[in-house]
Amino acid sequence: MKTIDLNSDMGEGYGVYRMGDDAGMLEIVTSANIACGFHAGDPLIMHDMVKRAGENGVAIGAHPSFLDLWGFGRRPIHGERPADIEKIIAYQIGALQGIAASLGRRVSHVKTHGSLGNMAAVDDALAAAVARAVAAVDRSLILVVMPGMATERAGAAADLTLMREIYADRTYGDNGNLTPRKEPGAVIHDAEAAAARVLRMVGEQCITTTSGKAIPVAIDSVCVHGDTPDSVSMARCVRTMLEGAGYAVRPFAA
Amino acid sequence: MKTIDLNSDMGEGYGVYRMGDDAGMLEIVTSANIACGFHAGDPLIMHDMVKRAGENGVAIGAHPSFLDLWGFGRRPIHGERPADIEKIIAYQIGALQGIAASLGRRVSHVKTHGSLGNMAAVDDALAAAVARAVAAVDRSLILVVMPGMATERAGAAADLTLMREIYADRTYGDNGNLTPRKEPGAVIHDAEAAAARVLRMVGEQCITTTSGKAIPVAIDSVCVHGDTPDSVSMARCVRTMLEGAGYAVRPFAA
Amino acid sequence: MKTIDLNSDMGEGYGVYRMGDDAGMLEIVTSANIACGFHAGDPLIMHDMVKRAGENGVAIGAHPSFLDLWGFGRRPIHGERPADIEKIIAYQIGALQGIAASLGRRVSHVKTHGSLGNMAAVDDALAAAVARAVAAVDRSLILVVMPGMATERAGAAADLTLMREIYADRTYGDNGNLTPRKEPGAVIHDAEAAAARVLRMVGEQCITTTSGKAIPVAIDSVCVHGDTPDSVSMARCVRTMLEGAGYAVRPFAA
Amino acid sequence: MKTIDLNSDMGEGYGVYRMGDDAGMLEIVTSANIACGFHAGDPLIMHDMVKRAGENGVAIGAHPSFLDLWGFGRRPIHGERPADIEKIIAYQIGALQGIAASLGRRVSHVKTHGSLGNMAAVDDALAAAVARAVAAVDRSLILVVMPGMATERAGAAADLTLMREIYADRTYGDNGNLTPRKEPGAVIHDAEAAAARVLRMVGEQCITTTSGKAIPVAIDSVCVHGDTPDSVSMARCVRTMLEGAGYAVRPFAA
Repeated sequence: MKTIDLNSDMGEGYGVYRMGDDAGMLEIVTSANIACGFHAGDPLIMHDMVKRAGENGVAIGAHPSFLDLWGFGRRPIHGERPADIEKIIAYQIGALQGIAASLGRRVSHVKTHGSLGNMAAVDDALAAAVARAVAAVDRSLILVVMPGMATERAGAAADLTLMREIYADRTYGDNGNLTPRKEPGAVIHDAEAAAARVLRMVGEQCITTTSGKAIPVAIDSVCVHGDTPDSVSMARCVRTMLEGAGYAVRPFAA
Repeated sequence: MKTIDLNSDMGEGYGVYRMGDDAGMLEIVTSANIACGFHAGDPLIMHDMVKRAGENGVAIGAHPSFLDLWGFGRRPIHGERPADIEKIIAYQIGALQGIAASLGRRVSHVKTHGSLGNMAAVDDALAAAVARAVAAVDRSLILVVMPGMATERAGAAADLTLMREIYADRTYGDNGNLTPRKEPGAVIHDAEAAAARVLRMVGEQCITTTSGKAIPVAIDSVCVHGDTPDSVSMARCVRTMLEGAGYAVRPFAA
Repeated sequence: MKTIDLNSDMGEGYGVYRMGDDAGMLEIVTSANIACGFHAGDPLIMHDMVKRAGENGVAIGAHPSFLDLWGFGRRPIHGERPADIEKIIAYQIGALQGIAASLGRRVSHVKTHGSLGNMAAVDDALAAAVARAVAAVDRSLILVVMPGMATERAGAAADLTLMREIYADRTYGDNGNLTPRKEPGAVIHDAEAAAARVLRMVGEQCITTTSGKAIPVAIDSVCVHGDTPDSVSMARCVRTMLEGAGYAVRPFAA
Repeated sequence: MKTIDLNSDMGEGYGVYRMGDDAGMLEIVTSANIACGFHAGDPLIMHDMVKRAGENGVAIGAHPSFLDLWGFGRRPIHGERPADIEKIIAYQIGALQGIAASLGRRVSHVKTHGSLGNMAAVDDALAAAVARAVAAVDRSLILVVMPGMATERAGAAADLTLMREIYADRTYGDNGNLTPRKEPGAVIHDAEAAAARVLRMVGEQCITTTSGKAIPVAIDSVCVHGDTPDSVSMARCVRTMLEGAGYAVRPFAA
């Protein structure tokens, strides 16, 4: 039977603040990328997310970021040495592992957040630092990567198990990278269109670019968002269409 | 042969800031309590401290705190539920474990910092939360406690290995707790006097109070400070006097 | 004509986070208490709030707090010296004045937030520090106080113009202070009941306590909240009922 | 009589942390650039610095930065819109003005810190945002700029009074900008050599570049540092040599 994973960022509140519909998403996705306190998240929220992900059979992942609460990890921060990036990633993975251990759960995967992820995707030195950090903390951890990008190469070189993902609501350029958000059409808002697109890419194991090109890649997971009511609907639509096409939607880590 | 441990708080800088003479103290003490980012410390400093502690044969410990960088964890913060304290401690222990794992080292002990430690010493519910957090993350972790206080009772009830400590530079009241810093004579500044006092308390396994009372306790470790040149001298004096009296100064965790 | 002011806390988001319906409240209230970055708020949100308050004819106030973003300023933090509280209040008022000046607006009032406000209401030394800070920065600033409490006494002693407020959705004890939130019935959820209660208290210039006692006080403003859709409805209901009873609802500062 | 100003960054501690010899520098310099809490500084330190600067006849300036405590404002942070930079600068100037007002003092100048300053020096849009922010808060504020760079042009276009500074311990390239710190020889460590160089540049009103070129500029102030004992010595040496050559060293703002 064909299988596919659905992953989503979660636990991205802080203190009294909340972001997105985590409860709704935990009924849809199979892998949760949990914020670790650097761009969002705090020990209480992390505890709650690990507990509920575990109860829902959703794989628990760390979602490390640059230290940038105010900018939600979205500001490109330069001047960090790759060796230092390793340390901030090790800290964040460990923090979630501590919370998970206290609940008798395990962290199964790591996905970098925001600018850290975007920068690592196109920077081999940074990507290698990410992979080294994951391998150094626990080499059984799965690294989430964008297929064809620097992170996939670095993860493979570090001999890590990789979970290759595509984005349900984003278009791709011919370089295999996401079209920048600022460009018109970069974000797909129509749930049916997004789901149909995902189904085609997963079925063909290809990234379809805005110019019509198809780039052959391996696809293990689909990233969906839960920030808005619309995005939860889209996530549900993606899952429904994949299941309708005969895919078993289940954690890649399982 | 009689043995004793010497412990000290370390890695209490942040970003460009530094606090105390960590390098000097690593040559004197046998257990390092490393700040975990909530009152001080950051992933780079933690990495550096774990690396150097490991190289010096010094046991690596987590030094969790209330989230209070500005107040250096010294402000009494009320209104935290004990269940939430468990989560912030699990996070901080895990963060240090992540850093330690990336260096092939292990965290051996946990000592709470500042106001969190002071409040837990006299609050059974808070002390129980601390002990539960440590046991839940990894029950092989040693919990550092003040003998006779709530933390010792809670740690024993949680069946944790305890490291009972006295303070080299502080006097004690008849309740077995430290004399508040504000009271005259609460802090001992004379290195020789402090060392002689430590030697007597360790030898007799008693806490000597300001009224002259002796409270029998078990003493496994002596806490020394490294904030100022004077405090490093005192630490060295304590070690020298203990060794002169025939004690093997070595990590309790060993 | 009888006049009354309505005030509400605003701009309590941070970075990407938002809290409450600020736009909705700006159509209802006449004084905005704008978070200054210590428990919530940041320069971008503050700028936006000052701009929109100005456009709506709503008086602009500073809403200073303990430095406690994670706890949203609600955690009781002890160990601050009153002299230091003065400095954190001066900083926060000044920060909002800087933003206001850049928009050609003026800050008219100051209301302390959360635990700082609660603690000052019953602590004469802390209340005096608050009043001193406001007077020192700009003695034309209006201080928002709870009538009958320490803050009113301190503000009067400092010869500040005072804006005395009651809370629309909270009950009062015989000591004239708010009933603690934990007690059953402390928070009023029924909009009509709250509005009727406000109308009676404002009309009689009395605080009605849970035991039925009436404490004569001066009332210049009513504090309403905007955190939830229900609270915005209640605020609107309070305003409508006051206007129906012949009150001109307008800024106290005007 | 020829006059010159000496400026230095100050109050760059945070909480329990301290940075540099502020007391020593206040005896040497005539303008203090006081950190405003975004890269360093807090209300207590700011209060202390304003008080002591005032007592020493040293002009009080704001030293705003990107929000980056961990990176000490030295990390290049991209993705901030110039309009948002205006708001963070207005906030920080206002915060120091609030502290200064509470002490009966006035803020006289503004100098951007670290990466914000470096980026503004070569980015006309960012430099214009800085100048707009200063002018919008209080157009009597003096803007500190590097002569020949974008900040000088923007400040002049905004019709602000400018204080043009050179660095005592840094070399310059032919583009008139500082030689990057990483390059060998970028930082001058010899106090006598630095002072002689300053004297020549101030006397000739020229920047001398590493290639030997002399770029004619106006020089109103010399920036000296106080981070290390050596840097304080250098600052004293610069002052002594300038006074020996007949310069009256006094605040530009006076």
